[in-house]
Amino acid sequence: MSGNTFGKQFSLTTFGESHGAGLGGVVDGCPAGIPLTEAVIQAELDRRKPGQGPTSTARKEKDRVRLLSGVFEGVTTGTSIGFFIANEDQHSKDYDKLKSVYRPGHGDITYQAKYGLRDHRGGGRSSGRETASRVAGGAVAAEFLRSRGIEVTAYTVEIGAIPCPRTAVDKAKDAPFNAADPFIVPVWEERVNQVRSDGDTLGGVVEVAATGVPAGLGEPVMDKLDARLAYALMGIGAVKGVEIGVGFEAARMLGSQNNDPITPEGFASNNAGGILAGISNGDAVVARVGVKPIPSIATDQQTVDADGNPATIRVGGRHDICAIPRIVPVVRAMTCLVLADMVLLQEAGRR
Amino acid sequence: MSGNTFGKQFSLTTFGESHGAGLGGVVDGCPAGIPLTEAVIQAELDRRKPGQGPTSTARKEKDRVRLLSGVFEGVTTGTSIGFFIANEDQHSKDYDKLKSVYRPGHGDITYQAKYGLRDHRGGGRSSGRETASRVAGGAVAAEFLRSRGIEVTAYTVEIGAIPCPRTAVDKAKDAPFNAADPFIVPVWEERVNQVRSDGDTLGGVVEVAATGVPAGLGEPVMDKLDARLAYALMGIGAVKGVEIGVGFEAARMLGSQNNDPITPEGFASNNAGGILAGISNGDAVVARVGVKPIPSIATDQQTVDADGNPATIRVGGRHDICAIPRIVPVVRAMTCLVLADMVLLQEAGRR
Amino acid sequence: MSGNTFGKQFSLTTFGESHGAGLGGVVDGCPAGIPLTEAVIQAELDRRKPGQGPTSTARKEKDRVRLLSGVFEGVTTGTSIGFFIANEDQHSKDYDKLKSVYRPGHGDITYQAKYGLRDHRGGGRSSGRETASRVAGGAVAAEFLRSRGIEVTAYTVEIGAIPCPRTAVDKAKDAPFNAADPFIVPVWEERVNQVRSDGDTLGGVVEVAATGVPAGLGEPVMDKLDARLAYALMGIGAVKGVEIGVGFEAARMLGSQNNDPITPEGFASNNAGGILAGISNGDAVVARVGVKPIPSIATDQQTVDADGNPATIRVGGRHDICAIPRIVPVVRAMTCLVLADMVLLQEAGRR
Amino acid sequence: MSGNTFGKQFSLTTFGESHGAGLGGVVDGCPAGIPLTEAVIQAELDRRKPGQGPTSTARKEKDRVRLLSGVFEGVTTGTSIGFFIANEDQHSKDYDKLKSVYRPGHGDITYQAKYGLRDHRGGGRSSGRETASRVAGGAVAAEFLRSRGIEVTAYTVEIGAIPCPRTAVDKAKDAPFNAADPFIVPVWEERVNQVRSDGDTLGGVVEVAATGVPAGLGEPVMDKLDARLAYALMGIGAVKGVEIGVGFEAARMLGSQNNDPITPEGFASNNAGGILAGISNGDAVVARVGVKPIPSIATDQQTVDADGNPATIRVGGRHDICAIPRIVPVVRAMTCLVLADMVLLQEAGRR
Repeated sequence: MSGNTFGKQFSLTTFGESHGAGLGGVVDGCPAGIPLTEAVIQAELDRRKPGQGPTSTARKEKDRVRLLSGVFEGVTTGTSIGFFIANEDQHSKDYDKLKSVYRPGHGDITYQAKYGLRDHRGGGRSSGRETASRVAGGAVAAEFLRSRGIEVTAYTVEIGAIPCPRTAVDKAKDAPFNAADPFIVPVWEERVNQVRSDGDTLGGVVEVAATGVPAGLGEPVMDKLDARLAYALMGIGAVKGVEIGVGFEAARMLGSQNNDPITPEGFASNNAGGILAGISNGDAVVARVGVKPIPSIATDQQTVDADGNPATIRVGGRHDICAIPRIVPVVRAMTCLVLADMVLLQEAGRR
Repeated sequence: MSGNTFGKQFSLTTFGESHGAGLGGVVDGCPAGIPLTEAVIQAELDRRKPGQGPTSTARKEKDRVRLLSGVFEGVTTGTSIGFFIANEDQHSKDYDKLKSVYRPGHGDITYQAKYGLRDHRGGGRSSGRETASRVAGGAVAAEFLRSRGIEVTAYTVEIGAIPCPRTAVDKAKDAPFNAADPFIVPVWEERVNQVRSDGDTLGGVVEVAATGVPAGLGEPVMDKLDARLAYALMGIGAVKGVEIGVGFEAARMLGSQNNDPITPEGFASNNAGGILAGISNGDAVVARVGVKPIPSIATDQQTVDADGNPATIRVGGRHDICAIPRIVPVVRAMTCLVLADMVLLQEAGRR
Repeated sequence: MSGNTFGKQFSLTTFGESHGAGLGGVVDGCPAGIPLTEAVIQAELDRRKPGQGPTSTARKEKDRVRLLSGVFEGVTTGTSIGFFIANEDQHSKDYDKLKSVYRPGHGDITYQAKYGLRDHRGGGRSSGRETASRVAGGAVAAEFLRSRGIEVTAYTVEIGAIPCPRTAVDKAKDAPFNAADPFIVPVWEERVNQVRSDGDTLGGVVEVAATGVPAGLGEPVMDKLDARLAYALMGIGAVKGVEIGVGFEAARMLGSQNNDPITPEGFASNNAGGILAGISNGDAVVARVGVKPIPSIATDQQTVDADGNPATIRVGGRHDICAIPRIVPVVRAMTCLVLADMVLLQEAGRR
Repeated sequence: MSGNTFGKQFSLTTFGESHGAGLGGVVDGCPAGIPLTEAVIQAELDRRKPGQGPTSTARKEKDRVRLLSGVFEGVTTGTSIGFFIANEDQHSKDYDKLKSVYRPGHGDITYQAKYGLRDHRGGGRSSGRETASRVAGGAVAAEFLRSRGIEVTAYTVEIGAIPCPRTAVDKAKDAPFNAADPFIVPVWEERVNQVRSDGDTLGGVVEVAATGVPAGLGEPVMDKLDARLAYALMGIGAVKGVEIGVGFEAARMLGSQNNDPITPEGFASNNAGGILAGISNGDAVVARVGVKPIPSIATDQQTVDADGNPATIRVGGRHDICAIPRIVPVVRAMTCLVLADMVLLQEAGRR
């Protein structure tokens, strides 16, 4: 148990279920004197909320965040920062049928196995809604990183097996699907519409890049920067793969191709994704996640009920076709949390 | 700092450099009463030692492990288990030229940036030799897991962009390259020989599978089983990607393809790699790592010296062509450490 | 930084200041299936609230706790439990004079030194009000301990240098001052009244005893049960000493006097306070804390202002004379948190 | 389980039993560039070894420490520091009688209860010999603290209920009993001799003071400096009480007496022991521990055997009369470990 805290010095502890009172968390370790407002956190939350964009459901959750502590006269005080996001749009009754039948691809069956009971309303703690707390915590981390000159950007590079180039990463924040290239948007929209009409769902690939990262972040040999990033990103629901730099492609390259030559002006390439031996090398830190398709599909699926008898389920309802647009800010948030922690760990003992 | 411990309840803390007195560690949290001998640890260490197999160097390190505490009359006592592996084959002088020139693809430049100084002999703490401590600690974890009916196997599924099927996973432990299919061995040998004659190096892909894992392991939402596995595996030097189950392939599947149907007899497929919502589902837990080619190549590379001036380096010497055969037992060890920790965390509070 | 979490497996993370939105926390690691209601937490909070008893101020804080997550249909789900206590009775303006003058005996000067700024309203995070979150978290721990047959009781054994015997420990919960002997109450009341009229304040000694504790709790050699208790209890504001069993008196005894003889029926005495070599021995676990007098006194004190110039301060206002009655439930809560953690740690690996 | 690590950023993980191969540990988080030699660690170890001074046994353990990693060319590299102290003087057979009879006041009965088995030779892990690892780790911390201008001194202020003033604290390091006043030495010697002839043992009180501690150390609200000190000191075997500043005496003072007035030149007194609201205030940090008499006495004691039947035991043999002289360097070491951790935590995020 006790797995709801992420980070050592800059840490986030979260709580909350999809259909309870709400979600929230505690950010601990943020240094004093960092400007912080509800508005800056809200802006990030607004990026992950449902009901926007071509892949999403009709739900209109407001997700208003409230800062409960740790900020005084507009800046952090160095004490723990509590926040809360009340649940508003709840239709628990819709989920009553899920009480005794396990949805394939969801955590229903494993939560039941682990705890012996579960909050079945909308997945409870296993719901993707849990990531709202991550986004809020990550927004605090992003403000701290800004004070160190570090910026983190996440963007979509593939949906439904259709990749796109990275031509407009800096505009992805406001683009549909957070696409790395605006020209791909209509193609992805068509693919999404087609899959929706089939009652099916899609996955994709999201990339995150951090610039301004000083060389020296990462704590060998167990808390290497890439290890912590993998830990953070694989922990996001639906993520099934994590890569650093060229990732699995490196396994297919020769040493002479993969090594990044070093020049007086810096590295001549960035196959390493800004990390050597688990420590940032001063180049951009780049990671990528593979996201599985949303398991809630509008067609019949084979499953079992709570007694282990065969059953059929059709989830349907107000569900997204693709998690990607909502997962992009979560990927950014978790990356910010890792970097904030690593910055603090590296600053300790430096003088 | 302070990043040399892995795990919460079943933990491993390591120390040691490639050319110092030796390497070792402390396993903490192993329950009392588990049979444990130096021989069982030595057997695992022997699998990762250099000087064996077609990809390796001529070095003949003995890597004799010595148990220093925590075992009495053949079983663990529940107290911390210290162990030590003395370095024997040291040619520090060979490495003097590395003092002032950074090797591309290695941690020389990042260790220098992080700490302001470094043990340059053979990479010091950043050397792959560090993983001997992981293998020793993982061997203890494996013995504990055995008491719970869990077995972990790692094997090679790709070298130099040449994949192989999984036809003989159970025999991979003793096969050349730890190949998942013995028929691929001559093909890989030929590829390795060719690359060696070019003065270049190769990467590959290693898979690990754990059987007998009960449903319920993993601590949402931050210490999910897949998150901890990614943390453990990405922290191994040279690993640039981690996948669970079908991994990145899931991002290219439809929801209806990716979901594993549930039947009274269990899951009809295992795309999920035995993990749903971060918790084991009772099926085999399967993960995969992409390993970059060894950065020490026998051709000239562009780099800089300690003063930032351009320089050329040709590492040559007694180096492996491919890290795969030595990384296989490390992948197994880290997986064992994660599972042992998760077993203990799940047992707490169950009654 | 990052010091707002207590406990490893059964953990409490808190946030909140005396004059912000409120206080709260996250309990993580509580096993599933433990009955839990807001009422049971509220009952403990009511014991620490001000405005009751002979030593207290006129403030009437309501301290209504709200459970935000982790409980479904009346029992814990095994996921993290968030809670919040809104601040209601705020007179921030009263504290404006504290902005630039440091109160002796308070954390004003050290918070300023540590963070470079501070929330000066009523002490901010350094206020005793912070302990409301500890009491709420401890109440959850107490419910878990109940499921294991462990009960924890705290009571007052000394106020203003006047000790009392332990004749009615079982009734202390509802007695004035939580006195261990009801006959002492009028004596203490008289002492308190006298000191109040002098504009001064008093300290005291609180004891805590846990019964039903099984032998075997405590994790040598760093997380011994007594070490964790000392950690938990010394961390309560105003506590300046912690003892286990006979405590400092043991330093003045002979070995033959201090050793507890062992009989087939158990220990013949309990000088050890139920702990041997850091592990519970099955007897009652007994600890004691020395609490300093409240530093806010209604007489002039010598101090400095924010610029380091000499100043005089008279705190006065709505302040308690003695922290004891409010600290008793906090001592109990922290003891519960330690024991809950140790129970879980001991259960891991037992089978 | 997993309780053999102390500290978060500057951490010590230990292993070893009194009659196994030896004892050792891993110091993690020590910044790079700190001068460190085996000699400086050995000097501290020599202070705690038995066979010296009027209270000790005839055993002559050599306790030679060997540095195994983390130091290169005379300074720390920032990587983990392994060390080992081989056991040399072993008479395991002497302890065979302890296999089936529990010694009162020792951990025999609780280790058996906790783990279901135990290494009975000389107490195994519960032996005071375990503290050699603490002293070695603390010696590393002391070197780090020196780089920050912090010095820590421990000294004896009471033995066998006979206190002494603090007239020569600076010479205590080399004085018999590490006495805070040399004039008390003959009195204590006489008391020790008398108790020895009675076959009995004595306890005492040790104080530790740290000078040069900057204001701002300590991490509220759970990792306050006093809380961490209490945790560290109560975890030393035989310690039954911990005080900060005037300690329990504060509970008997008035607020007007206990508060330390603040002047432009600093605090006018130091009742607080250098800590306010859990954060160092720039004054000397002062703590004190009460140490119980050694439980191994040379007279018959009532106990039980492994089957629960009544038994009598006379421990006798080569045992100390008083743990004090050997515990003094342990108290210093643990204080150093706490301060080193708190220095690093405070340095993180400062700029």
